[in-house]
Amino acid sequence: MNDQICPKFEKATQLLGKRWVGLIVNQLLKHPKRFSDLVSEIQLSPKILSERLKELEEEHIISRTVYPETPVRIEYELTEKGKSLEPIMKSIANWSDTWIRL
Amino acid sequence: MNDQICPKFEKATQLLGKRWVGLIVNQLLKHPKRFSDLVSEIQLSPKILSERLKELEEEHIISRTVYPETPVRIEYELTEKGKSLEPIMKSIANWSDTWIRL
Repeated sequence: MNDQICPKFEKATQLLGKRWVGLIVNQLLKHPKRFSDLVSEIQLSPKILSERLKELEEEHIISRTVYPETPVRIEYELTEKGKSLEPIMKSIANWSDTWIRL
Repeated sequence: MNDQICPKFEKATQLLGKRWVGLIVNQLLKHPKRFSDLVSEIQLSPKILSERLKELEEEHIISRTVYPETPVRIEYELTEKGKSLEPIMKSIANWSDTWIRL
């Protein structure tokens, strides 16, 4: 990179920096999850979680699969694009471990 | 990490995701810069840039040095905490290069 900025980089930081996005991606890196798993793990209101999941689906970072069971089961998982966020998530986890004081 | 969330991780993503923060850090990874360099490279209003620089100073990510020349010269550079963001910045740059379409 030269000293000029890259608009792709800026778009990525805005996407990843949106509140809860990092946490949702991190939770899904482990394995696909149901909506209720995410609600209880992230302790987020179902309304806001739905909004974020929808945005991430629109960005092709996660996919949503409906299993026609009774009761219906809906799972969210990372796409290839989403899974490739893993190195970013790991480097943020390492950095925050060392440098963030709560 | 287990399936519980880490508040340090969340704090880090919020800090890094704040608009312009990634770009400012990225520009300063190259070398210390003057305020006017950052304004022209990032094409950001001086008012917003000052706000962000102040926040990053408060988070101990950048430091500000005043050189008593005529005219006075003020430079911003990354602290050790700020420099250690480099792996995150690189992984975001790689990911956005591959996956972000403008």
